[in-house]
Amino acid sequence: MYDLIIIGAGPAGLTASIYASRYQIKHLLIGSQLGGTMVWASMIENYPGFDLITGVDLAQKMVAQVKKLGGEIKNTSVLEIKKKQDSFELRTENDEFYETKTLIIATGTQRRKLNIPGEVEYLGKGVSYCSTCDGVFFKEKTVAVVGGSNAAVTSALHLAGLAQKVYLIYRRRPLRADPLWEVIYETNVVEILGDGQKVTGIKLDRPYQNNQQLFIDGLFIEIGGKPGSELAESLGVDLDEKGFIKVNPNMSTNIVGIFAAGDVANASGEFQQIITAASEGAIAANSVYQYLKGGGR
Amino acid sequence: MYDLIIIGAGPAGLTASIYASRYQIKHLLIGSQLGGTMVWASMIENYPGFDLITGVDLAQKMVAQVKKLGGEIKNTSVLEIKKKQDSFELRTENDEFYETKTLIIATGTQRRKLNIPGEVEYLGKGVSYCSTCDGVFFKEKTVAVVGGSNAAVTSALHLAGLAQKVYLIYRRRPLRADPLWEVIYETNVVEILGDGQKVTGIKLDRPYQNNQQLFIDGLFIEIGGKPGSELAESLGVDLDEKGFIKVNPNMSTNIVGIFAAGDVANASGEFQQIITAASEGAIAANSVYQYLKGGGR
Repeated sequence: MYDLIIIGAGPAGLTASIYASRYQIKHLLIGSQLGGTMVWASMIENYPGFDLITGVDLAQKMVAQVKKLGGEIKNTSVLEIKKKQDSFELRTENDEFYETKTLIIATGTQRRKLNIPGEVEYLGKGVSYCSTCDGVFFKEKTVAVVGGSNAAVTSALHLAGLAQKVYLIYRRRPLRADPLWEVIYETNVVEILGDGQKVTGIKLDRPYQNNQQLFIDGLFIEIGGKPGSELAESLGVDLDEKGFIKVNPNMSTNIVGIFAAGDVANASGEFQQIITAASEGAIAANSVYQYLKGGGR
Repeated sequence: MYDLIIIGAGPAGLTASIYASRYQIKHLLIGSQLGGTMVWASMIENYPGFDLITGVDLAQKMVAQVKKLGGEIKNTSVLEIKKKQDSFELRTENDEFYETKTLIIATGTQRRKLNIPGEVEYLGKGVSYCSTCDGVFFKEKTVAVVGGSNAAVTSALHLAGLAQKVYLIYRRRPLRADPLWEVIYETNVVEILGDGQKVTGIKLDRPYQNNQQLFIDGLFIEIGGKPGSELAESLGVDLDEKGFIKVNPNMSTNIVGIFAAGDVANASGEFQQIITAASEGAIAANSVYQYLKGGGR
């Protein structure tokens, strides 16, 4: 029986473990991807303390820190959670069972993918899912943003201040915003082209200015994300209209003993960054400590 | 005319600048102590990404990062802020004037001090104002906590799990909580004793078990903190009953154009850590960006 199980090994889950160790809470961290979506960021310049670090390196540092402080990590997925009298029982992918008094759900989001050739191959080599993370590496370059949501438009606006040229490619029309950059409507990206080292262009499903190929240095895929809140939902945890877990300022949910942190939670004014996720993980661990100290009430 | 002035150079203010640079917001950071209260932490083990770093080193890294990204820092204090039509005018200690469209107030808290001999001399050498930060360095040692508030009792409880022996020294009686450790009531610490390198004991104003001296390795001073919210208050910003700035989830205040972040703000479930302050700074900068983008509405 654990006092706490943290689900998710991104910055929120890892920081929750760092703080849980600090409070000497008997806990386990279960996550299928060590570092979470952080490992997708090719270069990070805005995590305070590191002026330039890859997502993989920052993830490794956090994982090492968790282990150094005594945190136990199981690299697997949780498939099912059952609520028992005063505890929760978890079943993992490899059919192991764990029981815990409290839960921190830090399962993040899954970015929607285009699922086109080149998308996996050129990830971090011109293909990105995060303009705030990676936009700065395309100063004076030509980039394209795929998507039509507010996030895509914000992303394009941000990139317009950095890149020489920004295309916005949207499969429908029109956009809600009134952008100043070049918008390619009713068009899909069907393939990402490159020289094996980096992105050089994209292929469209219909010609734009008589050309079915665009020469670009970076492609930002901003077609939304899906919170990993299915497990939470199965336990009766309240979600908001977009499927994110509703949390109180101390990261507790509507279900006693269940806390949430990171991108899966609707905290931090819906700003999803490594630093905000980490902070939410710390707050959640502190709240678990207060909760356990109070005898579970 | 700046688009943004950040007041305070702790983790909240520094991170706000990192993000403001990322968004290419024309901004200035004004702070009297580079690093803020972070520089008091002798060793930090719970800031994600660094398994062991001094507060001074982490502060220097963040300051360097701010400067590398183009952030401008003025190492001085803001004495006065005047609200003008669509802007704010600031006057600094050295009588310089600055004008800005938006403000992020990240002025932190001032820890109350005992003001006794040895307190300054042994800071970071056995004297601490933060048990969560420094408690772990007193494993199996003897420590004392000064104070009677919830924070002091929580601090002593935390230390009880680490140290061999914990004294709690309180000038009044009784405590609200029912502690399991040794409480010394109606007693004040009048001097901190040491060998020049580190704390070795404390002198009390009345004998405890026939002894006016206690031999301890660490003294945690937990007699509360005072938010630096006077400037905010002078502008009509709403404070909570303890004097902290009331913020919305996006770190905006009741006054249009004024945002707050870090220990001075009542966010993050009242958990005050470097990681939570940094996160709030990032959220505030993002909100300023959204606000300016919307034409200041």
